[in-house]
Amino acid sequence: MDLKIPATTQKRIVIIGGGFGGIEIAKRLKRENLQVVLIDKHNYHTFQPLLYQVATGGLEPGSIAYPLRKLMQDIPNGVFRMAEVKNVDTAMQKIHTDIGDLHYDFLIIATGSTTNFFKFPKEASTKMMQMKDIPQALDLRSFILENFEKALITFDEELKEELINIAIVGGGPTGVELAGAIGEMRKTILPKDYPELDFSKMQIHLFESGDRLLGAMHPENSAKSLKYVKDFGVNVWLNTIVTDYDGNQIFLNNGKTVRTDTVIWTAGVKGNPINGFVAEAIVNNRIAIDEHCRVKGYENIFAIGDVAMLVQEKYPKGHPMVAPVAIQQGELVAKNIIRRSKGKEVKPFKYFDKGIMATVGRNKAVLESNGIRMGGFIAWLAWLFVHVLTLIGFRNKIVVTLGWIYNYFTYDRTLRLIIRPFKRKE
Amino acid sequence: MDLKIPATTQKRIVIIGGGFGGIEIAKRLKRENLQVVLIDKHNYHTFQPLLYQVATGGLEPGSIAYPLRKLMQDIPNGVFRMAEVKNVDTAMQKIHTDIGDLHYDFLIIATGSTTNFFKFPKEASTKMMQMKDIPQALDLRSFILENFEKALITFDEELKEELINIAIVGGGPTGVELAGAIGEMRKTILPKDYPELDFSKMQIHLFESGDRLLGAMHPENSAKSLKYVKDFGVNVWLNTIVTDYDGNQIFLNNGKTVRTDTVIWTAGVKGNPINGFVAEAIVNNRIAIDEHCRVKGYENIFAIGDVAMLVQEKYPKGHPMVAPVAIQQGELVAKNIIRRSKGKEVKPFKYFDKGIMATVGRNKAVLESNGIRMGGFIAWLAWLFVHVLTLIGFRNKIVVTLGWIYNYFTYDRTLRLIIRPFKRKE
Repeated sequence: MDLKIPATTQKRIVIIGGGFGGIEIAKRLKRENLQVVLIDKHNYHTFQPLLYQVATGGLEPGSIAYPLRKLMQDIPNGVFRMAEVKNVDTAMQKIHTDIGDLHYDFLIIATGSTTNFFKFPKEASTKMMQMKDIPQALDLRSFILENFEKALITFDEELKEELINIAIVGGGPTGVELAGAIGEMRKTILPKDYPELDFSKMQIHLFESGDRLLGAMHPENSAKSLKYVKDFGVNVWLNTIVTDYDGNQIFLNNGKTVRTDTVIWTAGVKGNPINGFVAEAIVNNRIAIDEHCRVKGYENIFAIGDVAMLVQEKYPKGHPMVAPVAIQQGELVAKNIIRRSKGKEVKPFKYFDKGIMATVGRNKAVLESNGIRMGGFIAWLAWLFVHVLTLIGFRNKIVVTLGWIYNYFTYDRTLRLIIRPFKRKE
Repeated sequence: MDLKIPATTQKRIVIIGGGFGGIEIAKRLKRENLQVVLIDKHNYHTFQPLLYQVATGGLEPGSIAYPLRKLMQDIPNGVFRMAEVKNVDTAMQKIHTDIGDLHYDFLIIATGSTTNFFKFPKEASTKMMQMKDIPQALDLRSFILENFEKALITFDEELKEELINIAIVGGGPTGVELAGAIGEMRKTILPKDYPELDFSKMQIHLFESGDRLLGAMHPENSAKSLKYVKDFGVNVWLNTIVTDYDGNQIFLNNGKTVRTDTVIWTAGVKGNPINGFVAEAIVNNRIAIDEHCRVKGYENIFAIGDVAMLVQEKYPKGHPMVAPVAIQQGELVAKNIIRRSKGKEVKPFKYFDKGIMATVGRNKAVLESNGIRMGGFIAWLAWLFVHVLTLIGFRNKIVVTLGWIYNYFTYDRTLRLIIRPFKRKE
């Protein structure tokens, strides 16, 4: 059945995904003679870089989410539909969704990424926590807090250890930032909230298969971030692969085991393509695109951001799966659509790498950008500044800034609320 | 099995319920030679008067919740346990909870109230929404927003009507405030978010079995509040009893029916007593107490707030189930425990009625207090002021104030997020 949509004589561009890339295109096409249909399974945009702060009680979910319908208020030719896309029929130029089918003239696939467990045992992976969207971040918050409540009342010392320990798999920015935030909580707020627990016994483990943290950054920054997380008392295991998890113990490739009830997997993401393309179009779970972000073999279908794989000279394995790539590709595709409508020549994508940064708890961060490389307090201020600036929505910018100022001076994270108790599948 | 709790030579007072009354007692006993154990099924205090603003996207749940462990940080002799109390064994002086048993020397029952469906058909009641705690308020927010998304895409005009209509049963403060908030949204934010829907067709119904709204207030204020909600386009049905609901249609005692998918029951609350008392101690679901708030027949068991029933000359049917009664009874019980420990005489409870107020959307409220009676803008400012002042926690006061200022000037409610889709039992 066809999806109900306002009738129009305009050509229709359908954007699947309201992440950084998708909303960039939608905003840039607001004055064009096109019907812009934005589709997302949520009714809000998620600012993923700050999910770990929702998970650790520093920010409310509403501060890092932005209602997509509010965004569409500024896009007079825009239509929003909350739907899950099942697949695309490129011959008929239609997408199939859980609420109906929709014809497109142009299609943008901006579906982002999902957690990549690689070859990790599937049963074990279901016992781990993830942190790719807001419900998962809230589940993680509830799960950790519930475990502290349970640890308080158990007479079993081994179980108590298991309940208060936290393990993070993956030493990329998400893993490092989360480890830093939890390390900071152990020092500051947790001993106040749970005076009955001995937090010197709480272990925070960070497992990284490579030989350094933040592998995408300069080795000097890797070394700094290693020092920072260690200063927060995190046990960092480099060159260590987590091979299995039974819900109580992590098994490592060096033969050792670590007891913990909470394991957060941040060791990888993979493209989240939609079905309907020929197998050759999919490389490493990402959709292969040309330099105009067109899906190979199609004139009117584009893919951008994490889900897209563009091999260029400087990026033989594709571009990094980060927000700036998605935003810049969104900008390029929108501009090229406008150029083409005016009979102008389209331009190829060229990534302008503004740099990369990661924070590790209070006052500490590392960044590198165009030859500059630094760590410490200034890098941390830069991190705060960039993240507030790139948050969507004026209200969110204000709320996050004030929240951070409050948390900074009070050493508090007031959002320690178990609003929806989370039961993990066992 | 006994609940694990820090060993002490102090006598133990167990407070069941972290509402207004329970936390009042806990705070007032922080310097006494007693172990103060606070028990709640949530790990946070809920500021119930503002739940309707969470349900309508005006406030984040974190702004009206306060972590009970943060509260206990200021109570050095305090212990918190997140638990559900099953029953009390008064002979053994023990309570039984889902996490273990606990001996008490003094017991305070401050378990508040739950929704009262009276003799309304049980099956029909499960199809209605409630708004007594934060998860319910979030469910309501999701449910309404999801219904608008569904209404957009249906070709069935009757179903569309059903999806966008909202009915509220009960013309007390909760029903009136909720009707006002939804009426305001229909005027301001909803037409912007859903330009494809015709909101002139959206009906907001408010059913009241009595002959006026806000039956606890002066008839003049009832008349004013009736005018206010009508100004927001709410259909008010006085002298009307909802007799049944099949998930699509409400059936009324006047033979009429009203189509709606969303029905919120705010028509009554009842005490939420715990099991273990003799039948005579329970009157109308509330625990009968004497003028010292002692449960009749027990020296060391007290009940306060909504769950307690104290008949005094001015209150032949018990005191109103509102926060000030709970707070004042909590204060009295704490002071009497201190007085008794010093060999002083205990004092009886005397309710100081500060007045009563209700708001009906932007700029409008009614209040009466010690002979003063007013409505309109000044009453609305007073309502804002009193609610911010009585919110627990400095951060919450600030966040709510700033949020209200933002919402007031932008006519916006940014928290229109479907974070946990809600499926109603059918």
